[in-house]
Amino acid sequence: MTRPTIAVTMGDPAGIGPEVCLRLLADPIVTTACTPIVFGDAAVLRRVARRCNLWMPERILRHDQWPPTSSNDLGPGIYDLQAIDANSVRPGYVNEGTGAASYRYIEESIRAVLAGDVDAITTGPIHKEALHDAGVFYPGHTEILAARTGVKRYCMMLTCQQITCSFVTTHVGYREVPKLLSVERILDVIELSADALSRLRQRQAKLAVCALNPHAGERGLFGEGEEERVIEPAIAAARQKGIQVAGPFPPDTAFLPDRRFETDCFVCMYHDQGHIPLKALAFDVAVNVTLGLPIVRTSVDHGTALDIAWQGKAVATSMIEAVKLATCLSAERPVSVLS
Amino acid sequence: MTRPTIAVTMGDPAGIGPEVCLRLLADPIVTTACTPIVFGDAAVLRRVARRCNLWMPERILRHDQWPPTSSNDLGPGIYDLQAIDANSVRPGYVNEGTGAASYRYIEESIRAVLAGDVDAITTGPIHKEALHDAGVFYPGHTEILAARTGVKRYCMMLTCQQITCSFVTTHVGYREVPKLLSVERILDVIELSADALSRLRQRQAKLAVCALNPHAGERGLFGEGEEERVIEPAIAAARQKGIQVAGPFPPDTAFLPDRRFETDCFVCMYHDQGHIPLKALAFDVAVNVTLGLPIVRTSVDHGTALDIAWQGKAVATSMIEAVKLATCLSAERPVSVLS
Repeated sequence: MTRPTIAVTMGDPAGIGPEVCLRLLADPIVTTACTPIVFGDAAVLRRVARRCNLWMPERILRHDQWPPTSSNDLGPGIYDLQAIDANSVRPGYVNEGTGAASYRYIEESIRAVLAGDVDAITTGPIHKEALHDAGVFYPGHTEILAARTGVKRYCMMLTCQQITCSFVTTHVGYREVPKLLSVERILDVIELSADALSRLRQRQAKLAVCALNPHAGERGLFGEGEEERVIEPAIAAARQKGIQVAGPFPPDTAFLPDRRFETDCFVCMYHDQGHIPLKALAFDVAVNVTLGLPIVRTSVDHGTALDIAWQGKAVATSMIEAVKLATCLSAERPVSVLS
Repeated sequence: MTRPTIAVTMGDPAGIGPEVCLRLLADPIVTTACTPIVFGDAAVLRRVARRCNLWMPERILRHDQWPPTSSNDLGPGIYDLQAIDANSVRPGYVNEGTGAASYRYIEESIRAVLAGDVDAITTGPIHKEALHDAGVFYPGHTEILAARTGVKRYCMMLTCQQITCSFVTTHVGYREVPKLLSVERILDVIELSADALSRLRQRQAKLAVCALNPHAGERGLFGEGEEERVIEPAIAAARQKGIQVAGPFPPDTAFLPDRRFETDCFVCMYHDQGHIPLKALAFDVAVNVTLGLPIVRTSVDHGTALDIAWQGKAVATSMIEAVKLATCLSAERPVSVLS
């Protein structure tokens, strides 16, 4: 088996991104399975390594050393993009400069994966307001990646050992959800989820689709028939395509242990429907994957945690799991080999 | 301490209600703390006791023995309402007859509590369609009780050791929720919850209010300002009244362990917002309480489970907890004494 190279963006320099990247680079299971290259600033990482007493890798690549030739594939490293003056960074305080740097890491990682210099991207936590201050108005990584790869049909998936959820809608207001539900969109998300989970499990995946209304509408008693009008036809169409999918299930009982054990992925209608059980069951360990992109991209499931930046308190579980998953997805290996 | 008498309705005779009632009557902790009287049919309970090999109490009160005088307060018993021919009941099959009987048990229990013959009501599981077939069109127990006691300001609360949630809206469609949220209604639910939890904990309760939109709207980025327009003013008004209440919290992180440990009750905007974490954390053990009634009423948190009726498979945890909570609430005792 070849060892994939994973571009790991450092995230906002003023957040916990640098620390979780350093913890990642020191993880022996990760570095046996893949070659992680942090796309960031070496000087920032060095400051954080000193403060938090963490290992700093020696392998630092400058612009003229990129892309690395196979002969210098000597283990985990840093692609030093020198996007910010390390001494200007105040831990916990984001601004235009930290936002611009975090965007630069993303841009370079996309360029690298599209050029075939890396096999996948794992993104560290960015700060939306810092990005705004830097004149970048995308709502998040997913939209940047979709725009850069010209993809229209994509969705967000969150996964961890306990539970996996994919989302028909995500960062929109409560009221907007019903009008965004269509047979076509739900079918897209079912197909993208079935494809991803079947590859990860290396067998046909089993999906469960959540209803929109409490009690799945209780046969028309609640709601405006969204289950009958859009969710059930999407499930029927997916079954016609040979996908193993059941539902729509009442949202409150969908996630009970018995159903969880037999379900590879829950297709959720809205953000909190899937995020509430995910965070209750597995906070800070879930991995975010964008399905439908022509490239492999995973992400941490947490933010910049400015209150604990550069203090040695950050947990790297989500980052480590995200890189492992990117490794499996880019090598088309079952997830179990790394767990 | 006096031992309160709790009227326990048997629920639909064809469901698991009779079995969980028999298990309740045999529970030594329950019968030490209170005198449970099952409002039901003795002949049905006798059939179920024989089938499931459960203890059948000897104390059966007929109509002319009701209300019992204190001299015959000899322990757990059955108030035999003879509402249905026991031989006509087929386990797992509800109909007009079983629906009418289950409604009769509720009516008699309300009469008894309003007359002061019992101290509280705990209701067993009824079947909505059987009630409909019997010509009873209330959506559930709560509405029957509100109508009979003439109460306008009430709400549902679900509670268990792990988590307690109260609800601003419950059995309505997804789309209807936003228009039912008002400062007045949210404040009512906060006040009812603070009052109930302060009595149960015997100290000032700490409440957390959930937002409606993902990320609590992220400062206007999602949603239509429901957090600013209705939720925050309700919280401010509650604080003015001396209630300890925080929020609005992003719904997906509201229920994380740290927040759970310091919160006595989560005020939820809609059914699944509270039911998803509740069922994920504690299926079949939560207790349903109607707050705001002039009487104490608790209920099991499960349905009639027709597929396992009369088979000896039903778990009585929710029923037992519901009766314990009714005991504490009617005696104004802290919950801890019975746990």
